[in-house]
Amino acid sequence: MSSQAPHPALLIPGPIEFDDEVLKAMSHYSESHVGQPFVNVFGETLTQLRQLFQSTAPDAQPFVISGSGTLGWDQVAANLAEPGDDVLVLHTGYFADSFADCFETYGVKATQLKAPIGDRPQQDEVEKALKEKDYKLITITHTDTSTGVLSEIEGITKLVKKVSPNTLVIVDGVCSVGCEEIKFDEWGIDAVLTASQKAIGAPAGLSIVFASGKAIQRFRDRKVPPGSYFASWKNWLPIMQNYEAKKPSYFATPSPQLIHALNTSLTQILSRPLSERFQQHKEASQKIKKAVTDLGLKQLASKPENQANGMTAIYLPDGMKPPEVLPSLLKKGVIFAGGLHKEIATKYIRFGHMGVSVTDPKRDDIDRAIKALKEGLEEAGYKAPA
Amino acid sequence: MSSQAPHPALLIPGPIEFDDEVLKAMSHYSESHVGQPFVNVFGETLTQLRQLFQSTAPDAQPFVISGSGTLGWDQVAANLAEPGDDVLVLHTGYFADSFADCFETYGVKATQLKAPIGDRPQQDEVEKALKEKDYKLITITHTDTSTGVLSEIEGITKLVKKVSPNTLVIVDGVCSVGCEEIKFDEWGIDAVLTASQKAIGAPAGLSIVFASGKAIQRFRDRKVPPGSYFASWKNWLPIMQNYEAKKPSYFATPSPQLIHALNTSLTQILSRPLSERFQQHKEASQKIKKAVTDLGLKQLASKPENQANGMTAIYLPDGMKPPEVLPSLLKKGVIFAGGLHKEIATKYIRFGHMGVSVTDPKRDDIDRAIKALKEGLEEAGYKAPA
Repeated sequence: MSSQAPHPALLIPGPIEFDDEVLKAMSHYSESHVGQPFVNVFGETLTQLRQLFQSTAPDAQPFVISGSGTLGWDQVAANLAEPGDDVLVLHTGYFADSFADCFETYGVKATQLKAPIGDRPQQDEVEKALKEKDYKLITITHTDTSTGVLSEIEGITKLVKKVSPNTLVIVDGVCSVGCEEIKFDEWGIDAVLTASQKAIGAPAGLSIVFASGKAIQRFRDRKVPPGSYFASWKNWLPIMQNYEAKKPSYFATPSPQLIHALNTSLTQILSRPLSERFQQHKEASQKIKKAVTDLGLKQLASKPENQANGMTAIYLPDGMKPPEVLPSLLKKGVIFAGGLHKEIATKYIRFGHMGVSVTDPKRDDIDRAIKALKEGLEEAGYKAPA
Repeated sequence: MSSQAPHPALLIPGPIEFDDEVLKAMSHYSESHVGQPFVNVFGETLTQLRQLFQSTAPDAQPFVISGSGTLGWDQVAANLAEPGDDVLVLHTGYFADSFADCFETYGVKATQLKAPIGDRPQQDEVEKALKEKDYKLITITHTDTSTGVLSEIEGITKLVKKVSPNTLVIVDGVCSVGCEEIKFDEWGIDAVLTASQKAIGAPAGLSIVFASGKAIQRFRDRKVPPGSYFASWKNWLPIMQNYEAKKPSYFATPSPQLIHALNTSLTQILSRPLSERFQQHKEASQKIKKAVTDLGLKQLASKPENQANGMTAIYLPDGMKPPEVLPSLLKKGVIFAGGLHKEIATKYIRFGHMGVSVTDPKRDDIDRAIKALKEGLEEAGYKAPA
């Protein structure tokens, strides 16, 4: 069915399986980064991102830069905060600690509001925290890839607008954009950072940021220049605006092949209603979560409302460790990931269910993975409840 | 001959034309960034870079990070200098100005030693400058992509070791690695930064840095942490060391497809003696430069010894502008680049001659380009000397 060489289904929470056409776009012949054919494709890709974020605000700004999702943190920390500023980081796993580290690197004071593992900070706690300091921005990890905990973006955004309207709302959407609903304008988000290799469905190598007009204005009003050179919007903003206007422009050489792949994937995603795509991810996720419960296993994300739709983090049976299960899954043609949250990394595994594995009716990745998980656990000595 | 769709030959000074096998590697099926098959390929690729730099020093350290060549400047400025340090930037074109900007972003004081357009700073000028301040490092653009001026790495490095032995020697090799000889250990270089899309022959999207043990020690001895998060060696050094030891490791998700492409290209490059590769680039360059002279045209690089072997920057006939020539070259199936050096951008064009266009005997890119240049100039009204 696929033109790819036979390989195990990659069902980790990113990189994910890619569509044949997307991978084909990766081997596009070489083009000038300032030649009109490529400039047109890059410009169109930036405009596609507006659609992906359901944004029509003309002052919102997409950025696509060679790098990984991590570079999105630098973009936020170096452009939207200034040294000495306070920022509030909502913690739902490993990635909040790293984002906080990134802020500190740029002299920004990050206060973390932590929830117990598997949970997320509650609205009353966030409200209390927002009243304690003048936070320039708040960050929310939409889905924390280390725990599979889903945050509540709409509710928190509304709360911030009510309690602390000058605080920018920043969403780490690395593991959510493309599989969880994000109504950028309607909810009033100020920036979402993400990457190409998860539910957006293109190979790793691109840092993608979508910023509101308010965020761009905050950047323009800075008292000191951005603290990074490569991540500086001073360097990138005119380039992105030129590309989207289909005008050649140069700061650093983009990757034409990766942009072609992103364009191909976004074209596929946007050819159908986004609501349908989100619903498909929800349904696949429900099916997986039911299978996990039926196996007598627990998820890290403790309540239905804080469980991500693009991945599931699963506690292994007592005493069983990931190396006792993952190799046998691999033999059955399925790749899951081990744990990542430092305190409990050896106690759980992660199952990513995003993109074509979920949306392509020709693929049976999800069913195969559920079956492999059950068999793999049994081979490791686990007896599922009848 | 090629499996790529028909397209004009891309003969700008990067990105260059890529080999079919390299482009095929770009569409590799999706793999886990911490799975053993990919970890092995990444590890092998890092080791290949040691060979490319003719380095056997066990304490030298390769870095391959998603980003563009520009990110290499951030790596140098944020890891090898500290705020308040003085650094000396040898200026042979546009890229020195930008590198200096990058240093200033990280609070490092950059002093530029400028040569007239088309020339390079002379040894006695460099010696004088080195004696004026305690420079923590000196940067040399090996080939400045805006001018085609080649710097003298071996001579300057010797001079630095004699006059100011504590000054690290940093080479911007974005437009030289893979087509100009670099004997990293023997010459005593402390870091070379480069990118994938020029003479290394893989698509854009990777920042590649090769650092000496002395540079790594300078990094370890820092008084303050690196000023960048994404470019921080504190984050990347253990990752690169683990990958090369074939152990999975995670800081930010690498791009497996780009690493496969880089691995494929380096395997091709290293399958033959490097000296042969450099000689081929020299011969192609001589042929092109002779054709340019025969056409009665001048190069920006004013003397044979400072002319790069991977590109040629050519002054157009008096009064003729790039838009009068480049479109007619495109019609003939050849893409050259316009000028980039701000002061004279409208007066010249750039011809890149690196990688498979030079080394693959099945390609006639160079001969076609020379012919197209002559015809294009004639069509624009220029009469070459008889």
